[in-house]
Amino acid sequence: MTRVAVLAGGVGAARFLDGLVRVVEPSDVTAIVNVGDDMEWAGLHISPDLDTVTYTLADLVNPETGWGLRGESRRTLERLSELGGPDWFMIGDLDLATHLYRTHRLTQGDPLSAVTRDFTARIGLECVITPVTDDRLRTVVRTDAGELAFQDYFVRRRAADSVHALRFDGADSAKPAPGVEEALRSADAIVIAPSNPFLSIDPLLSVPGVRDLVTSNRSKVAAVSPIIGGQAVKGPAADILQSLGHDVSALGVARIYAELADIFVLDETDAALASTIEAETGMRVVVMPTLMTDVETKMALASGTLEAALDVA
Amino acid sequence: MTRVAVLAGGVGAARFLDGLVRVVEPSDVTAIVNVGDDMEWAGLHISPDLDTVTYTLADLVNPETGWGLRGESRRTLERLSELGGPDWFMIGDLDLATHLYRTHRLTQGDPLSAVTRDFTARIGLECVITPVTDDRLRTVVRTDAGELAFQDYFVRRRAADSVHALRFDGADSAKPAPGVEEALRSADAIVIAPSNPFLSIDPLLSVPGVRDLVTSNRSKVAAVSPIIGGQAVKGPAADILQSLGHDVSALGVARIYAELADIFVLDETDAALASTIEAETGMRVVVMPTLMTDVETKMALASGTLEAALDVA
Repeated sequence: MTRVAVLAGGVGAARFLDGLVRVVEPSDVTAIVNVGDDMEWAGLHISPDLDTVTYTLADLVNPETGWGLRGESRRTLERLSELGGPDWFMIGDLDLATHLYRTHRLTQGDPLSAVTRDFTARIGLECVITPVTDDRLRTVVRTDAGELAFQDYFVRRRAADSVHALRFDGADSAKPAPGVEEALRSADAIVIAPSNPFLSIDPLLSVPGVRDLVTSNRSKVAAVSPIIGGQAVKGPAADILQSLGHDVSALGVARIYAELADIFVLDETDAALASTIEAETGMRVVVMPTLMTDVETKMALASGTLEAALDVA
Repeated sequence: MTRVAVLAGGVGAARFLDGLVRVVEPSDVTAIVNVGDDMEWAGLHISPDLDTVTYTLADLVNPETGWGLRGESRRTLERLSELGGPDWFMIGDLDLATHLYRTHRLTQGDPLSAVTRDFTARIGLECVITPVTDDRLRTVVRTDAGELAFQDYFVRRRAADSVHALRFDGADSAKPAPGVEEALRSADAIVIAPSNPFLSIDPLLSVPGVRDLVTSNRSKVAAVSPIIGGQAVKGPAADILQSLGHDVSALGVARIYAELADIFVLDETDAALASTIEAETGMRVVVMPTLMTDVETKMALASGTLEAALDVA
């Protein structure tokens, strides 16, 4: 039995988890998922990262996009657009059922973690997927256009604004969701998934108690670089590294994760950076292919990462 | 120019209005619509009577049911049902866009009347359709099973409970929506549509100021009986007449409307009741076919009703 806790954002984390649950017992995996991207949309509570992770693990995800559902239609959204309603956030008819289910339960007073647990059970998942917190936590992005709500920045404005700073509204008073602390404490390995360090991982760490539990378990923490060859596999991580003054490379990411993780998983493309990262951050660097294009590459990355984390020197 | 204000509930009122806008200028018609049936469903604000009226007038309504949209699908609701979510309220994929549009606007702080105005303009209607109030007003039904929220009684429990009393939560502090009082004041004729007197008309009258404006204009008010031959054309009006101790007939309805209306429109089936109603209530009774089965019967009822109301003796 190998218990693994994964700090997870959206698409990259979902793919990593999809490999992980094929190399360890799914029920031994706890995905602690970012909710800084959550939004209220026309009265509905939307949790994009939770949905991406659950849809991916249930093999329901749209493989073209990495988010949303396969075989999706947009009848409601098209009508909403005709009515002059908000149509910039792509919501399909089946996806909408998830948001309605979640919102219905939340309005009845159930916490997001319980709703998520029931939802994942209903779609047949055995691993634990939990929001990092049941409390309201919202990523706010400071740009030249002012402070933007996360999805406003990310989807509506297509992440085109230069990011000057981020804050996580509500983080100070947020409590970890039930089971989050225990999962980190009892894990044999903790993985920081290949997610955006600023938009996905930082909000998780901003919940009081979480960062300390990661750093105090640093010897069993492995971080997977989301940057390959100076570029993000997906999303604005490279742009944000630059605009916040970091090195736009896996080295830049490694510096950010140095105090959290003992192991840094580097793509083979960036093998030349390994010795610099080791020398500068003190992390053990493991070099392997990190691009997840199919089940095999997902499984190989998950098992390689896990092996490194369990191999406490 | 003949200005007409109509106190309106759902299907019966919608059909009456559909006739009315074909016999007078649509822009001279103001439909003052019940919101006691409104509900929050999975975070969305649903206004069934407003939707039935607007869908009918825009010729979008499902002719089989009298509510909902033609050519509707239920992809979202079916998935929601699979997820174990609330599936007792029949919401189609296109209908859902209406609720999302409305809720989006309401969460932005727009009043329901403004949202309704924009919605009706968008779907091409020229008549004025307004909620009776922008404030929260909810019909609560007292039954043997306790107090039930309206849609709980009406849809979930299929109006099977005997109704002992009704109250209109929020009515005391509700204000008429902008234009409602002026529409009643300036109308050449006021029509109480063939709607449920308890579930559709009473909530309208419960908004402070509305009842007084109707009674003080009694001479130009015509009420159309929703009861034909002792039966409601649709819905539980007959059952409620009975359980509240009224005569289950057009006479029972006439007694309820006596202080509000000068004219009572009676179906020809009930012609034998005309003299009793006139003698007992002092209303002028007009006998005509009231069953609205097609455009012609709708128009005939509207024009006959209007003629009677304008013909102040």
